Amino acid sequence: MVYLNGNFIAKNEALVSVMDRGFLFGDGVYEVIPVYQGKILRLNAHLKRLQKSLDSVKIPNPHTENEWLAIFKQLLTYAETGNQSLYFQITRGVDIGRKHSFDVLTPTVYIEVNPLIPKTKQVLAQGFSVITQADIRWSRCDIKATSLLANTLYAQTAKEHQVEEVILHRETIVTEGATSNVFMLKNGTLHTHPTGVNILSGITRDLALESAQACNLTIKESRFTVDALIGADEVWISSSTREIMPITQIDGQAVNGGKVGQYWACVYAHYQRLKK
Amino acid sequence: MVYLNGNFIAKNEALVSVMDRGFLFGDGVYEVIPVYQGKILRLNAHLKRLQKSLDSVKIPNPHTENEWLAIFKQLLTYAETGNQSLYFQITRGVDIGRKHSFDVLTPTVYIEVNPLIPKTKQVLAQGFSVITQADIRWSRCDIKATSLLANTLYAQTAKEHQVEEVILHRETIVTEGATSNVFMLKNGTLHTHPTGVNILSGITRDLALESAQACNLTIKESRFTVDALIGADEVWISSSTREIMPITQIDGQAVNGGKVGQYWACVYAHYQRLKK
Repeated sequence: MVYLNGNFIAKNEALVSVMDRGFLFGDGVYEVIPVYQGKILRLNAHLKRLQKSLDSVKIPNPHTENEWLAIFKQLLTYAETGNQSLYFQITRGVDIGRKHSFDVLTPTVYIEVNPLIPKTKQVLAQGFSVITQADIRWSRCDIKATSLLANTLYAQTAKEHQVEEVILHRETIVTEGATSNVFMLKNGTLHTHPTGVNILSGITRDLALESAQACNLTIKESRFTVDALIGADEVWISSSTREIMPITQIDGQAVNGGKVGQYWACVYAHYQRLKK
Repeated sequence: MVYLNGNFIAKNEALVSVMDRGFLFGDGVYEVIPVYQGKILRLNAHLKRLQKSLDSVKIPNPHTENEWLAIFKQLLTYAETGNQSLYFQITRGVDIGRKHSFDVLTPTVYIEVNPLIPKTKQVLAQGFSVITQADIRWSRCDIKATSLLANTLYAQTAKEHQVEEVILHRETIVTEGATSNVFMLKNGTLHTHPTGVNILSGITRDLALESAQACNLTIKESRFTVDALIGADEVWISSSTREIMPITQIDGQAVNGGKVGQYWACVYAHYQRLKK
């Protein structure tokens, strides 16, 4: 069961017009929220970021916060038990004639819910490999937009290289992962790229920083190079579905001798408490 | 009447699944071809560029050149008389679960035909205004992709500023227009940004260069600045629906005293012959 423009329907019966600007132009924005034991994690922060994305691309928000919550709750009643991932997408809507510029349209709203099965601590503690690539995306990565072709190509590259993620860099500076934020721990200080137009301001990024502070780490939102990343004491990536994941190999080179660091375990544990 | 996955149907009955990756990720490519008096302009060049776009994003081409032609011809029989613009889009297809990486899917093919009414020479000869903005798009503008959110925002900006186009620059270098290529004539030499990842290799760009040669202009595919553009003898933009259009004002500043230059008329006339 999915939600499309006011209706709760079977996923294979959920159809949109070819005139939908989401289909023709990737003209839409989206959010993904984890739902743990029925609790929608940081709903307000997600709806606030949604509003920021919508404002940036001049799509009117079709619902109030209470309306969004009511729709989510209704849709979640159709989901199986267990943790869920709530995906919702708003496109600019259907326009009769294809043209790049736009009029005021009725936005299309599509929502689906999928089981969320985070990796266990035992699996995570084995560490993960990533590769790095030049960041070819547009200069408004702070907007969570559905024009995601670059991101899909990175994800495919990761799959082909059998690694967890592609970490991106502009010139030598690490920005973020194709679908995650990146953290580098060195000498007790945790570095992550400052918010701005080159990264998505991840909600899980915020929770990771909150967890890191609880673990007595100094936080420094600052730029760092790929070389610094490889030479770090610990490297983590974060996303709403991955949570906080330790990286132990970058471009075939071991980070911290290939071992998951001690701070990751603390941050992971704290994050688990934030989910409650 | 439009074409969707083998069927010729009414446009408002043409529906795609919400699981189509074109809708979820802007994961598709497209082409626009002018059709003058039933003649599809430079079909082979368009199909060749389509193949390049498809290869770049690893979508298999669902049709041979003959199959494409047969579909276009059939669809054109439903169009009204007069010149037409043929729009066709191929997305990666429908995937059951939303994930950034992809499997081999059956591509979605959508085609529509719209009346093409180029501006008359008299209207064109009045000249057009543009503004310039920083080029925030991704670094693979050579791929004619449907992840077009940046382009739609530029088009909207143009509309709001009541100008014809937004001309883009990376640092100080002019790349192209949001939906056109840009030409600068200075002292008998015509400059345009070299092909590569930062511009679309326009078919009309090629035809404009061919026409410029016929008008005895020296062609130089080279980078130039916004200041050089404003100080040019003549400035033109080209696209399949605009053909070759003279620009007489940039960011409120007159080009060549605000007069359409003499070479534009020659190039325009030659282009009209190429359409035959």
